[in-house]
Formats: sequence, structure tokens, C-alpha cells
Amino acid sequence: MLTYWNNYPTIQNKLQTVCSLIEERLQVENPDIQDALIEMTQAGGKFLRPAFFFFFAELGDLEKQDPIQLNKIATSLELLHMATLVHDDIIDDSPLRRGVSTIQSRFGKDVAVYTGDLLFTVFFDLIIETMNASEYMAINAQSMKQLLLGELNQMASRYKSNGSVENYLNSINGKTAELFSLACMEGAAFGHSSPEIIQQAANIGRNIGMAFQIFDDILDYTSEKEELKKPILEDFVQGVYTLPLLLAKESNPDVFLPYFKKESQVTIEEAEEVMQLVIKYDGVKQAKKYAKNYTNDALESIDCLPKSPTRKALKKLTTQLLIRTY
Amino acid sequence: MLTYWNNYPTIQNKLQTVCSLIEERLQVENPDIQDALIEMTQAGGKFLRPAFFFFFAELGDLEKQDPIQLNKIATSLELLHMATLVHDDIIDDSPLRRGVSTIQSRFGKDVAVYTGDLLFTVFFDLIIETMNASEYMAINAQSMKQLLLGELNQMASRYKSNGSVENYLNSINGKTAELFSLACMEGAAFGHSSPEIIQQAANIGRNIGMAFQIFDDILDYTSEKEELKKPILEDFVQGVYTLPLLLAKESNPDVFLPYFKKESQVTIEEAEEVMQLVIKYDGVKQAKKYAKNYTNDALESIDCLPKSPTRKALKKLTTQLLIRTY
Repeated sequence: MLTYWNNYPTIQNKLQTVCSLIEERLQVENPDIQDALIEMTQAGGKFLRPAFFFFFAELGDLEKQDPIQLNKIATSLELLHMATLVHDDIIDDSPLRRGVSTIQSRFGKDVAVYTGDLLFTVFFDLIIETMNASEYMAINAQSMKQLLLGELNQMASRYKSNGSVENYLNSINGKTAELFSLACMEGAAFGHSSPEIIQQAANIGRNIGMAFQIFDDILDYTSEKEELKKPILEDFVQGVYTLPLLLAKESNPDVFLPYFKKESQVTIEEAEEVMQLVIKYDGVKQAKKYAKNYTNDALESIDCLPKSPTRKALKKLTTQLLIRTY
Repeated sequence: MLTYWNNYPTIQNKLQTVCSLIEERLQVENPDIQDALIEMTQAGGKFLRPAFFFFFAELGDLEKQDPIQLNKIATSLELLHMATLVHDDIIDDSPLRRGVSTIQSRFGKDVAVYTGDLLFTVFFDLIIETMNASEYMAINAQSMKQLLLGELNQMASRYKSNGSVENYLNSINGKTAELFSLACMEGAAFGHSSPEIIQQAANIGRNIGMAFQIFDDILDYTSEKEELKKPILEDFVQGVYTLPLLLAKESNPDVFLPYFKKESQVTIEEAEEVMQLVIKYDGVKQAKKYAKNYTNDALESIDCLPKSPTRKALKKLTTQLLIRTY
């Protein structure tokens, strides 16, 4: 999906190098798994985390930068993301990811467990090669832990009809925003920006990550199946109650209670009713407000970065990514 | 199971500290998972990897040692081991481990995936705290990768009736011997032994690990169910063909072919027939020879270590662990 970056040719080139490094590092003896990993990389997402990393690196001191180090760190971010995706797909029993069969559906949960683990080790290799001895080792370990605690928290909340907005925001802060924050922060840090900019980058990344996940969860309630490339309301059926539903439920608990009670026994028709009810009771509308607030916070902080073409491009990207459907 | 160490009171005390540190570090918000993790730790195995680590540390320069650092590294070894166990149990669909329900059977595969991942992150935390900037970071990452490649290799060989002894030895070298080798090596290194002793320690650990895994695989063919605390011939039913079977098959392929062909459809009665055939065709007897060779290599190398009460104890332990049933 590097075509997403057609208007950002410098970034696109750098992401191509990330893609090559992933393929180079993911050497497994089993040819099936090897193929699946390469297919997953290529069918891949937008490489958003490495992209934000490079944007923030470009804001730094170009003369001091080491392109090989930057490429490895950018790659580590995508690998950490991929590892969690492979494991997520086991949890969700997902047949598809980005329109391509998941590792777990093609090879079984067994292979998917170890494949995810292997991606973690390659992630680990790369950060050791690039930042061993720096404080960023511990920051990475901390981020990885936050990511998993976010996922565990989300799982522990499954089918809980008393789920709160606060708990949801905590979960996505760990499972999504943490990695966006790390990407922007490391871009600034290894791009040799000042400590203040590094701190700003971490905050901007966190806000972008929060908005991004909320936006993603909104899509579950507004997209057609073909567009989403995954089954409609998969999260709801799995007992993962996201922001639009939580907000609609807050003001109208009785409407939703019968559906919650069915847990995984809910039918497709009932899931579609829930979808309509969430829209009817302004769940989507209110969730968009949350997303917009996080996006605006991000955009305002971007405006405080040093003026440059990169800042402009970063603002454009953030806008394009997060408010295209408002 | 720290009673195993009753005759080694110094080691037993140190392992108790490892146990406490594991409990301290495994703080999860979900109380069920928290309990399961603590139960797993306490019901735990023999803590062999930390124990070998401490034995080798004791051979070093005691005055230069930092007990807190040593405790953390010993703990990291057990956590890495536990992480792979939690994920292994998913693959094997195991109901029991050490006579206690597995995480996957109590909470489902979902929780087990993330719980294993979380153990990996706590392992990372500990090694970053204790050896950031040292070459041992990369050595740890390498070991973790070897462990997973060993498991992946074993999985890719499932139900393959043409499995070779060589391939088996490669698998167990990764999935088991690697971590024993790391434990002994790190004990020597962080105990401030000489580079020569560190290298010897790594070799001794590898030989002990190989013998230990072969011995474990032999038990599948010689133990009663109660003794083993897991279903008889679980590995065979899962398509994991270990050394006793591979050796018996080498000289009598036709005898075993009909059983291989049934794959996971094999009945309990048939599994018991295989067990008898493996014994009849000297699979167990020959596998014991392999185990004995690795054990002897380990013991000979232990004899070359500097003479000390620890060396004596290490020799006793290795003998007790690996040749008790010959």
C-alpha cells in the first residue's frame, strides 16, 4: 500500500527501504511461513508508524543523521506492529487482514503464535543493533509492555456491559497510541532534535494514535463490508465494545442491554440492529467529536514545531488521515 | 518445587529470591491472570535454568559480583522459559503442566497468547536493566530467536514420517539446549569468570540441555501417566516424533508406517502399541546412549573447571539430573 504515499516521494522511498529490510530480516526455514510473512508485508498497511518516524526525523538535524540507523529503527516499529497484528488475529479468530488471509487462518493458531514471537525477536534484534546502551532500550520495552497491557485490558473487558469510556480510552492508549507516540518520539530523538521537540513529538504521536484508533472503531459502524475488508461489527460480536457503542449506551442503557446479554450468540441481523441503534442514538456523532478533539490537539502541537516544508507535509498528512470523512 | 534443592541450601535461597522477583514483576490488572501466573510460578518446575546460572556464578570472582544484578538475570532466564511454556501449551492444546491447569486451558488461547507476550516483555525489562550496552543484549536476542526457530522447526516437521535424527537434534538444540547454554554462560560472565571459562560454561550448558531434552523425551515412552503428569504419548499424537521413535523407526520403518499414516486420528490403544514397539525395537535403549554421550561430554568439561566445592556440587547435580534412571 505504498501508493498511499505517492504525494510524499521522499517518505515513499524510505518506506520502500523499510519493506526491503523486513523481507531481508524475516528469513525462516519453512517456505510457507516465509511466503506468508512476505505477503503480509507487501499487502501491508500504510506503514504509518515508520512514516511518522521519518517525518519527525526530517525535522531534526539532517547532517548528524545515520540513514542506516534510521531505517532499522523505522523497521523495528513496523515489526513490533506486525507482531501484535499476528497475535491479535489469533485472539479475534480473524480470517482476513487487509483483504489477505491471516497467518492464523492459513497455518493455524500454532504457527501464528510462534510467527508473532519471531517478529518480536527480530524487532528486538533491530533495537539492540541501533540503540543498545541508550535509554531508548528501556523506553521500547516499556512501550511493548503498554501495548500488551492495553490488549489484555481490552480482552478482560469483553462482553462486559458496564464497560466505561474511560476504560476504553485507557485500552486504546496502550494498544494503539503508545506505538504512534514511540514512532514520533524516536523519529525526533534519532533525528537529533532537541529534548523539547522530542517531548512534543511523543505527545503529537499519542494524540494521532488516539484519534486514529477511534476513527478506526467508528468505521466499524459506518462502512460497508467490502470497504472494510473484514466482517461487519466483528468487534461487537467478539464482545469488544468500542467508543460509538459506549457513548450511545451511556445515554440509553436499556436499549442495548438485550443485545449485550446475548454475548457471542448474537446473530448477524442483531448486530446490524445494534449498528443502526448506535447511529440513531448519536454514538457515531459523539465518537467523531472525541476523534476530532485528539486530532485538533495534534494539529495545534504540530503548528508549534519549527516551520519547515516537513511540518507542512506532516500537517497535511495528519489532516488527510484523520478528518477525511468529517 | 524448590524442595528439589534441599541439599543445595545456598542455591535454594537464591532461587527463592528469583521466585519473589517474578511475583513482584508480574503485576497484571486482571486478578485471574495474576493468580494463574503466580500459581504457575509456585507450582513451578525446578528452576533449573536459574540454578545452573547461580552454580556458574559461584565459580567466578565473588568479590566483584552484584547480587541484585545476578538475581535479575537469573529471573530473566526463568521468565523467558515460562513465556515459551505458556505459548507451547497453546500449540499442544495441553490441559496440564506440572500437574496444574495451563493458562490456555483455564482462560483460553486468547489470554495465553498475550500472557506469554507479557512474560517476554518482563524478560526484556530485566535484561535491559542489567546488561544494557553489553554484548549480552545481542546474545539474549539471538538465544530467544534460536528458541523460536527450534519450535517452528519442530512444528514444521509434524506428522512427517521421514523425520530424521539430525533434524530432531537441531530442533532440541534450539528449543532447549540454547537456554541452558545461555544460563551457564551468563552465570560465568556476570560472575566475572575468564573468557575461557565463559566459553566452557556455554558448552557445558548446551550438552546438559541436549541430554535433558532427550531424557525428557525418553520419559514419554517409559513413564506411567501419573508420574509424568501429562497424557501419555502426547507428543506422538500431536505428530512430534522424538528420538526414541526416530531411532526405532530408522531400523524398522515398515513397522511404524501404518501408525504415522493415521496422523492425529491415532487412538489411545494404537499410541500404546507404538510405545511398546519403540521399546521392542531398542528406540529407548539407543536414545539413552545419546543422552549419556551428551551427559558425559558435560561431565568431562565440568572436570576441567577450576577445582572448588561448587564444581563438585555442579557435577553431583548434573549426574543426579541426567543419569538417575540408567
